[in-house]
Amino acid sequence: MSYKMITISRQFGSGGRTIGKEIAAKLGIPCYDQELISMMAEESGFSVEQVKELDEKEVRKKLFTTRAERALNSSYLQSALWNAQEKVIRQLAEQGPCVIVGRCADRILKDRDDVLRVFIHADDDYRAKRIVEVYGEKEGADPLDRILEKDKLREGYYERYTHDQWGDAKNFHIALNSGALGIDYCVELLKGLYQG
Amino acid sequence: MSYKMITISRQFGSGGRTIGKEIAAKLGIPCYDQELISMMAEESGFSVEQVKELDEKEVRKKLFTTRAERALNSSYLQSALWNAQEKVIRQLAEQGPCVIVGRCADRILKDRDDVLRVFIHADDDYRAKRIVEVYGEKEGADPLDRILEKDKLREGYYERYTHDQWGDAKNFHIALNSGALGIDYCVELLKGLYQG
Repeated sequence: MSYKMITISRQFGSGGRTIGKEIAAKLGIPCYDQELISMMAEESGFSVEQVKELDEKEVRKKLFTTRAERALNSSYLQSALWNAQEKVIRQLAEQGPCVIVGRCADRILKDRDDVLRVFIHADDDYRAKRIVEVYGEKEGADPLDRILEKDKLREGYYERYTHDQWGDAKNFHIALNSGALGIDYCVELLKGLYQG
Repeated sequence: MSYKMITISRQFGSGGRTIGKEIAAKLGIPCYDQELISMMAEESGFSVEQVKELDEKEVRKKLFTTRAERALNSSYLQSALWNAQEKVIRQLAEQGPCVIVGRCADRILKDRDDVLRVFIHADDDYRAKRIVEVYGEKEGADPLDRILEKDKLREGYYERYTHDQWGDAKNFHIALNSGALGIDYCVELLKGLYQG
């Protein structure tokens, strides 16, 4: 069995994005990650800054004046953004082979049988150490707290829009612990699986 | 990284047991599955029949006369059986290389770093078809109902004793959809991973 696309859902700090980029580079196909932000902006009519602001978070206070205005707009804007995201990801799936990291692409494309759905995770200690190496220290924030907060955001986002359990093995063809197995091993394994 | 043991947790009908047996045969190491029943019987002092009766189920009515007697004994017997199961699995881990299928072995041995923890699952349609091929038809029972009922039992059992979510990718080094990837592929992949 070979596939046209790979979607990678991942825990923060697990190296899922790195794995996606490396597979794509080895296969000579595009990898969409941060690039999706500008595509979503273009599709929705929001600015890149607004998309980042709304992305995976509750709308921040500074955007609106009153609580009522905030609540109303939060819901409306987030739905509009989700619709843009769905559309962008479905268009990419039509275009050609690629890797997509995050953005619930696994669920958005769940009815396609040419999509290899991957979940990358790792133990908390491994991830806490890795985010400091990759993203640096963040003043006043313990690395473990940073990953747990991000997990919570991703979990909430995923469940809100997909009504599925975040990290449920059954939603993926393959789920890998990158900390235990090694990032290079994961890249080689997934590359082989994609090629069939 | 190489491992000493493999634990395989699996959805009913996913071929997890077959995968475990085949890996063990190829590696020339024992695979424990139904064999654990008699070991648990010996350890606990129950008969093999009693262990089967208590296993993964609520204690059936026929064993006890009154509801109070049933509730009391159910809890007591199931705890005793769980203790025997933990002990048997920990003893096997001390003995030498092996594969253990089911029985929450992944959680019982979660603190060991020489255990490769695997979850095998597959889509409902694949499993419904497979159980008829492997176990035959069951009069008056739809194959899909049979797998869903068994999933529910395993899920309840796992969560009751381990306090973890059944099928959560994060509890495993690797989780595989055997229906999509193929049983032979899973066997070869896991054998390679075990050997390091």
